[in-house]
Amino acid sequence: MGHVLPSGGGKALMNVGDAALLLLDHQTGLFQTVKDITVAELRANVSALAQIATLLKLPVITTASEPEGPNGPLMPELAELAPHAVYVPRNGEVNAWDNDLFVQTVEKTGKKTLIMAGVWTSVCVMFPALDAKAAGFNVYAVVDASGDPSQMASRTTLARFAQSGVMPTTTNAVICELQRTWRRPEAAEIADIYTVATPDYRTVMESYQKAKDVGSAQKQYQDRM
Amino acid sequence: MGHVLPSGGGKALMNVGDAALLLLDHQTGLFQTVKDITVAELRANVSALAQIATLLKLPVITTASEPEGPNGPLMPELAELAPHAVYVPRNGEVNAWDNDLFVQTVEKTGKKTLIMAGVWTSVCVMFPALDAKAAGFNVYAVVDASGDPSQMASRTTLARFAQSGVMPTTTNAVICELQRTWRRPEAAEIADIYTVATPDYRTVMESYQKAKDVGSAQKQYQDRM
Amino acid sequence: MGHVLPSGGGKALMNVGDAALLLLDHQTGLFQTVKDITVAELRANVSALAQIATLLKLPVITTASEPEGPNGPLMPELAELAPHAVYVPRNGEVNAWDNDLFVQTVEKTGKKTLIMAGVWTSVCVMFPALDAKAAGFNVYAVVDASGDPSQMASRTTLARFAQSGVMPTTTNAVICELQRTWRRPEAAEIADIYTVATPDYRTVMESYQKAKDVGSAQKQYQDRM
Amino acid sequence: MGHVLPSGGGKALMNVGDAALLLLDHQTGLFQTVKDITVAELRANVSALAQIATLLKLPVITTASEPEGPNGPLMPELAELAPHAVYVPRNGEVNAWDNDLFVQTVEKTGKKTLIMAGVWTSVCVMFPALDAKAAGFNVYAVVDASGDPSQMASRTTLARFAQSGVMPTTTNAVICELQRTWRRPEAAEIADIYTVATPDYRTVMESYQKAKDVGSAQKQYQDRM
Amino acid sequence: MGHVLPSGGGKALMNVGDAALLLLDHQTGLFQTVKDITVAELRANVSALAQIATLLKLPVITTASEPEGPNGPLMPELAELAPHAVYVPRNGEVNAWDNDLFVQTVEKTGKKTLIMAGVWTSVCVMFPALDAKAAGFNVYAVVDASGDPSQMASRTTLARFAQSGVMPTTTNAVICELQRTWRRPEAAEIADIYTVATPDYRTVMESYQKAKDVGSAQKQYQDRM
Amino acid sequence: MGHVLPSGGGKALMNVGDAALLLLDHQTGLFQTVKDITVAELRANVSALAQIATLLKLPVITTASEPEGPNGPLMPELAELAPHAVYVPRNGEVNAWDNDLFVQTVEKTGKKTLIMAGVWTSVCVMFPALDAKAAGFNVYAVVDASGDPSQMASRTTLARFAQSGVMPTTTNAVICELQRTWRRPEAAEIADIYTVATPDYRTVMESYQKAKDVGSAQKQYQDRM
Amino acid sequence: MGHVLPSGGGKALMNVGDAALLLLDHQTGLFQTVKDITVAELRANVSALAQIATLLKLPVITTASEPEGPNGPLMPELAELAPHAVYVPRNGEVNAWDNDLFVQTVEKTGKKTLIMAGVWTSVCVMFPALDAKAAGFNVYAVVDASGDPSQMASRTTLARFAQSGVMPTTTNAVICELQRTWRRPEAAEIADIYTVATPDYRTVMESYQKAKDVGSAQKQYQDRM
Amino acid sequence: MGHVLPSGGGKALMNVGDAALLLLDHQTGLFQTVKDITVAELRANVSALAQIATLLKLPVITTASEPEGPNGPLMPELAELAPHAVYVPRNGEVNAWDNDLFVQTVEKTGKKTLIMAGVWTSVCVMFPALDAKAAGFNVYAVVDASGDPSQMASRTTLARFAQSGVMPTTTNAVICELQRTWRRPEAAEIADIYTVATPDYRTVMESYQKAKDVGSAQKQYQDRM
Repeated sequence: MGHVLPSGGGKALMNVGDAALLLLDHQTGLFQTVKDITVAELRANVSALAQIATLLKLPVITTASEPEGPNGPLMPELAELAPHAVYVPRNGEVNAWDNDLFVQTVEKTGKKTLIMAGVWTSVCVMFPALDAKAAGFNVYAVVDASGDPSQMASRTTLARFAQSGVMPTTTNAVICELQRTWRRPEAAEIADIYTVATPDYRTVMESYQKAKDVGSAQKQYQDRM
Repeated sequence: MGHVLPSGGGKALMNVGDAALLLLDHQTGLFQTVKDITVAELRANVSALAQIATLLKLPVITTASEPEGPNGPLMPELAELAPHAVYVPRNGEVNAWDNDLFVQTVEKTGKKTLIMAGVWTSVCVMFPALDAKAAGFNVYAVVDASGDPSQMASRTTLARFAQSGVMPTTTNAVICELQRTWRRPEAAEIADIYTVATPDYRTVMESYQKAKDVGSAQKQYQDRM
Repeated sequence: MGHVLPSGGGKALMNVGDAALLLLDHQTGLFQTVKDITVAELRANVSALAQIATLLKLPVITTASEPEGPNGPLMPELAELAPHAVYVPRNGEVNAWDNDLFVQTVEKTGKKTLIMAGVWTSVCVMFPALDAKAAGFNVYAVVDASGDPSQMASRTTLARFAQSGVMPTTTNAVICELQRTWRRPEAAEIADIYTVATPDYRTVMESYQKAKDVGSAQKQYQDRM
Repeated sequence: MGHVLPSGGGKALMNVGDAALLLLDHQTGLFQTVKDITVAELRANVSALAQIATLLKLPVITTASEPEGPNGPLMPELAELAPHAVYVPRNGEVNAWDNDLFVQTVEKTGKKTLIMAGVWTSVCVMFPALDAKAAGFNVYAVVDASGDPSQMASRTTLARFAQSGVMPTTTNAVICELQRTWRRPEAAEIADIYTVATPDYRTVMESYQKAKDVGSAQKQYQDRM
Repeated sequence: MGHVLPSGGGKALMNVGDAALLLLDHQTGLFQTVKDITVAELRANVSALAQIATLLKLPVITTASEPEGPNGPLMPELAELAPHAVYVPRNGEVNAWDNDLFVQTVEKTGKKTLIMAGVWTSVCVMFPALDAKAAGFNVYAVVDASGDPSQMASRTTLARFAQSGVMPTTTNAVICELQRTWRRPEAAEIADIYTVATPDYRTVMESYQKAKDVGSAQKQYQDRM
Repeated sequence: MGHVLPSGGGKALMNVGDAALLLLDHQTGLFQTVKDITVAELRANVSALAQIATLLKLPVITTASEPEGPNGPLMPELAELAPHAVYVPRNGEVNAWDNDLFVQTVEKTGKKTLIMAGVWTSVCVMFPALDAKAAGFNVYAVVDASGDPSQMASRTTLARFAQSGVMPTTTNAVICELQRTWRRPEAAEIADIYTVATPDYRTVMESYQKAKDVGSAQKQYQDRM
Repeated sequence: MGHVLPSGGGKALMNVGDAALLLLDHQTGLFQTVKDITVAELRANVSALAQIATLLKLPVITTASEPEGPNGPLMPELAELAPHAVYVPRNGEVNAWDNDLFVQTVEKTGKKTLIMAGVWTSVCVMFPALDAKAAGFNVYAVVDASGDPSQMASRTTLARFAQSGVMPTTTNAVICELQRTWRRPEAAEIADIYTVATPDYRTVMESYQKAKDVGSAQKQYQDRM
Repeated sequence: MGHVLPSGGGKALMNVGDAALLLLDHQTGLFQTVKDITVAELRANVSALAQIATLLKLPVITTASEPEGPNGPLMPELAELAPHAVYVPRNGEVNAWDNDLFVQTVEKTGKKTLIMAGVWTSVCVMFPALDAKAAGFNVYAVVDASGDPSQMASRTTLARFAQSGVMPTTTNAVICELQRTWRRPEAAEIADIYTVATPDYRTVMESYQKAKDVGSAQKQYQDRM
C-alpha cells in the first residue's frame, strides 16, 4: 500500500516507510518524578509504541544520559518488546541531539520522520525535537508516552511544541497512523497492541466475543428446536 | 439571507450553503473507550448536530470502519434524526479519507466546508480532517460531538487541530453559526435543538414560560379587581 | 417474593412493600443553582426513580413550596412518568415536614420506609429526613437525584446524613434494592430504566445486541457452508 | 410560630429561639491561607450569616486572637452587618473556649445551641466546638463560612466533626433552618440574603422578574387588541 | 502620556486612546448555562470592565439579541456602572456583527481596537470577533468576563481565538493594560476596581492598611517613651 | 504466627486464618459503566487480591448474576490467578446473599471474616455486605477492587459502609493485613503482588536493584584499585 | 498552664503533657508511591511535627520496617529536627504494633495519647492506630503528615479512622492543639514552625512586617515635618 | 563548549552566553493573589532560577513597581541566592518596559535572549515580554516561576504567549537548557538546584544513594565471606 492513496488519503499523515521511533530516557528513576500521567499508563504507552514499531519494522533508537546514576535504568520491558532497538549511550548530554553518535544513528536510518517520546517531555523530548526540526526532519512528539514533572509543565510543553512546528500526538493516534487499515495480515496483532495502550478496549473486545458466542450458541440452539 | 451581510457580518463564519456534516465512526463499542466527555453528552451533541443538519438541509454522511466487529454499531438514533444521511461502509480503512467511495461522496455534495465529528477525535476525525484540509476544504472539527480515550489525548488533539489549520469548534457554536438569526421560520425547532445539546437551557426556558404565565395571570387578576 | 429470603438475603435491605417515594421541590428555577451534579444527570435520575416507583407501584408524593415564584415549576416530566403521584402544595414552609397535609399524606400511605430526593439536598431533603427519622421512619436519601449549591455543601450534607442515621444512597442502588431479581416479569422495563440513569449502560446493551446478532448470523452462515 | 409544629416538623432541627452565632477569627491575614474555598465565597457566606442573625435577632459574638499581628483585622463588613455583635478580644489563646470572658459571654446569652464558623475550621472552629459539645451545648459548624489551609485539611475536619457529634452544616442550610417559612414578614429581606450566599439565585430571581413583566405586558397588549 | 513611551514600552500593548469596550449578551438567563466560570466571578469581571471603561472614558456598547425572551435581561448593574454605554437592540441576529446598527455604532466611535466580552464566548464573542478581525480591527477577547456552557467549549474557544488572530486576555490584564501607571490621578479608584475583579486583593489591602497602622502606632508609642 | 501477637499486635486487624475472599460480578460489560476508578486499576487490584488469596490459601468465591447477558463474562484472568476459586452462578438475583447456594458456599468455608469486592460497589458489594453483617460476619469492603458508576455514587457508598459497620478498605491494605511480616517464605512473591496493585512500587524496586548493583560494582572496582 | 482551664477549655482537646509522637516508615522509597499529597508537602508537615515535638519536649519514636530494602532510608531531616527521637528497627513486621520493642518503647514513655503519622496511611498508620486504640490509648492520625498510594485510598482510610474511633487530624491542628496560647516564651519559634507547614503563612508574615515598617517610617517622616 | 555543537545540537535552544534573567514583581503581597500554582512551588521555582543564574553567571535584573505598598516586598531569598542581581525600582509603571532605567539596564547586559518570570504572569511578564519581542529580543516566559490570579487566566496567558511568539517554558526546562551537559564542573551544584524545583527528585537521589551504599556494603560482606 502506498503512502498516499488514489483518494488523496494519507497526504497529510505520517509515512510509515519514512519513520523511525526515538525513545529518550525512559528511566525508572525519572519515572518517579512524572506527575502529568500515571506511571502505569506511561509504561503501557511506551510498550505499545515499541510493539507497533517492532511489528511494522520501524527502526527504534533508545538512549539514556546517565543510566548508572539516580535516573535509573531504562524500563526493562523495552529490551523484550523491541529487541532490534539500537541503544545509544550518552556522555552526560541532556539533549540527545548534542550527542554525535545519536545524530549519526538517526541519520543512518535514512528516515526523515521522527516519532519521539521520553521523560521529561519538556526537556528530553523537547530539545532534540526542536533541533531535529531545525535540521529539517518532520517531528512528532508522543505526549502520553512521555512524562513531565507537573500538569503546568505538561500544558506549557504542549503549547511550545505547537508553536515551534513539532506535531503533538498520542500513542493511539500513532498506532492508527502507522496501521492505516484493518485489512492487513497483522490486524490481530495490532488489535492486541491497542489493548495495551487502551485497557478499556480490552473489555470491549472481551464483551464482544462473549456476546458473539452467546448469539452463535442461541442460533445453534434455535436451529435444533 | 446571504452568507455575508451588508454589515460585513458572516465574512469569517461558515457558510451554511456550502457546508456538509460528516459523522465518523460514532459506534457504541468505541463510545466505551471515550474518557474526555461523558457518553450522555457526546450522544446528545451528535444528535443535535444531526437534527440541525436535517432541519437546514445540509448533506450528512455517516461511516463506520468495522461495524460488525467490537467497535459496535452506529448509534441508532442517527437513522431517525438524519434519515437523509448517506452511509458509507469502509473496507477496514482507519482514515475515512483513504476510502475512495467516501471521498467521492463528499465531493458529490459539491460543498467545500466540512463539519466533522467522530470517535476517536485524535484518529477518526483528525486523519480525514488533515487530508481534507490538504485537499483544499475548509474543515471544522466539533470536539464535543467527538471523543478521545483520555483527557491528555483530548488536549493534544485540540493543539494539533489548531496547529494544522483545522478549526476547532463545539456543537453549540456550530448550531449558532448555521442559524445566524432568530427571525426565521425554524426558530422554535432550533430552540428545541439547543435543549438537546444544553440541558441547562431547557430549565431556563421552562422557568421563563412559567414566570411569564404567572405575570400574565397576575395581570388578568389585577384587571379584574 | 418475600422481603427476607430463606438465605437471609434482604434482612438489611429496604422492603419494597413498605416503601414510599417522596420527591421534594424538583423545581426548574432551583435546578439553576445546583452545582454538585449536572442538571442533565439530576433530571435523568429523578425520572428513573419516578419510573421504577410507577412500575413497582410505590406511592409517590411530590411537593413544592412556592411554585409560582422564582423557584419555578416542578420538572414537567414527573407528571408523565409518575401519573399516580400525589402533589402536596405547601404554604411557604421550607421543611415539608412542617406542613400538616404533607405529613398526613405520608402517613396515609402506611409505609414506614421513606425514599427521599429533592433540591437542595442540604435543606429540602435534609430537614424532612431528620424529622421523619425522629418520627420513627426508616429514611433513605438519594443524593444523586438531589442537588446542592456547591461541592462543599454536597460533602457536608453527606456527612450529616450519615451522622444522623439517615441512609445515603444513589439512584442505581435504589432501583436495584427495589428490583432484587432479574427473574421477574418487569425485567425488560427495568433494564430500560437503568439506561435512563446510566447512559453508559445503554451503549453496553446496544453493543451486546449487535454482537449477539453477528454471532447468530455467522453461525447461520457457517451452517450454510 | 413554635419550634416544633403540630406536624412534628422541626423536632430534629435547630431552634431559632435557642441559638447564638459565634464568628471566630475571620481575619483578613488568615484569609490568605485559606485553600478549601475562595475568599470571595467565604466572605459572602459569613456576611449572609451575620445578616440573618441580625434580622432574626440572634446574639452574635465575634472574637480574634491577635488582631494587631499578621493574622490581620476582622473582616470589616461584620461591624456593619451585625452591629449588635459583641466582640471579645482574646489574650493569645488559640482556642476561644480557653478564654474566660468568651465562655462567660456565651453563657450570658442563655442559648444552648451554638452556630460556629471561623478560620481555620480545623482549629478556630474545631477546638471551641469540641469543648462546647463537652460542656453540653448543641453545636453546629458552618463549614462554608469557615476556611482551612488545604482540601485535605477540609475533608479531615469534616470527618472529625461528624465523629465527635458536632453537626456539620452550610450557610444556606443554616439560613433555611432559621427561616422555616416564607410566610413571614421578613421574607423579602431573607430572599436578599440568599442572593448574597448563592449568587446564582440572584440570576434566577432577575430572570423570573423580567419574564413575569413580559407576561404581564403581553397580557395587557392582548387585552388591548 | 503617549501610547508608546521613549523606552519603547507599550509598542505591543493596546492603545487606551484607540479602544472601545463591547459587552455582548450579558443576560441573566444565559448566565444560568455558563459552566466554565462561576456566575459570581463572571459578573464581578464584567462590572470591573464597565468601571474601568467609565473611569478612563472608553466608549462602551452593550447589546442583547432577545431580551424579552428566555435569555433574560442584561445584568442590571451595567446601567449603573457604565451609564454612558450605548445599548444596541438586535433584531434576532445571533452575531452582533450581522446587525447594521451595531457595526455603525462601533464605527462611529472611530476606535480600531475592540475589547469584547460576552455570553457565550464561543458564539456571542467569537462571531463578531472573527468578523471584526476580518474587517481590520484589533480584537481582544476577555475570556473571564465571558462564559461558555462547558469546560470543553471554553478550551476549544481559546484555541480558536488564538488560531484566528483574536487576542485572548483576562479582566485583570485589560485593566492593567489600560492603566499603565500608578502615578496617575485615578490610582485610588483603579485600586478599588481591582478589588472587584480580584477579591483576594482586597484582603491584601486590608491587611496592609492594618499593619501600617500598627507600625505607625508603635512608632508613636516608642516616641513617647 | 498467631493472629494476636504477644505485643498485642493484630488484635484489631483481620485474621488471615478466618478470612474468605468474595469476588462479586467482576464482569467486563459492567466494567464499562465504572467511573470512579480506571478499568486498568480496577482489574489490577482484583488480580492482586486473587493472587494473595491463592498464595495464602484463602477460600475464594466468585459469582455473576447474568453472565450470558450484556453484563458480560467474568474477567478472564480470575480463572488463572485463583484456580481454586469456587464459582457460584446465580439465578438472576442482584444481591448475592439472596442466593441460597451462595450463602451455603460462604458458610461451608467456616470463615467469619469476609473480604468483599465487586461491581457495582453500591449494589453488588453493598447488598451482600449489609446482609452478611446482619448475619454476624465481619465484613471488609475493598473499594478500589470495586467500581461504581459515578464519583458521587462512590462517595455515597463509602459513607454508607462506614455508617453500617462494614469496614471500608483498599487492596494494598488488605494485602498488608494478610501478610503481616516480611520474614516469611512467601516474601518475594508478595513483593511481586504489590507491583501489580501499585505500579509505582515497581519502579522503586527496579531503581533500587540497579543502584545496588552500581554500588556493588563500584565497590568491586575500588577493591581492585 | 493546666490542660483543662477554668473556662472548661481543653476538656476535649489533646493533653500536651500526656502525648507522644510516633513517626512510622517515612522512607524515601515509599514516598515515591504516595499520590494523595505532594512529597514536598508531606516532608514539610512531618518536619513541622518533629520540630514542635522537639520544642515542647514530647517523646518521639521513629521506626522503619526494612530500611535496607527498596523502601529506602528514613527521611534524613528527622535526625536533625528531632535529635532526641528513639529509633526502633523492626524485624520485617508491617504493623509496628506487632513488634515487642516498639510497643515497649511506647509504653515506657508513660503517655496515653499517641499522635501517629506515616507512609502508607492505610497500613503503617492504620494498623498500629487500630491496635493502640484496642489497647486503650487515645489515638490521633495526622493525615497530611502521612501518605497513601491513591486519592481513593486516602478517602477510604479517613472513613475507616472515623469509624473505628481513631481521631483524624492535620499538622496545623496538632501544632495548635499543643500550643494552646501565643502568650508563651516559645511563641516566635512556633510561628516559624507554622511557616514550614503553611508556606502561605510565611508571605502573610513577610507582608505584615514590611507594612508595619512602612507605617513606622511614615510616622517618623510625619513627625519630622 | 560552543552553543551549537558539531552534531547540530543546540541550534534551536537558548544560548547561555546570550541570556539574561529578568525577575519581575515577585512580591509577597501579590503572591497572596496567585491561584494557578501554590506559593511554595512558585517560590521554589524562582529560587532555583536565581541559583542557576548565579552559578552560571547570567545577569539578573529584579524589579518591583510599588514595594512600599500593599504588593509587599520582593521575596527576601532573592537577595541571598542572586547577590549579583541589579534591582531596578520603578516609578509606578505596571509594565517594566515602560521604565527607561529598566530597558537601559537590560540593554547594558548586551544579551539578546531574555528569560522572564514574574507575578502576575498575564501582566508583569506579558507586557514586557510583548514589548521586548517587538524590540527584537528572543523572549522566554517561565510560567511556573510566575503566577496568575486564576486557572482561567493562566490558560489564557499561555495561549497569548504562544500566539505572539513569546516562548513559554518551565523552570526545569530552563535549567536543563542552560546546563546542557552533566560533564561539567558544576554538576553537583546543578543537581542540588533540581531538588529545589523538583522535590520528588530529592527522594530519588536519597533512595539511590542508600541503595548504592547497601550494594557496596553487601559486596564488602560477600568479599569477606
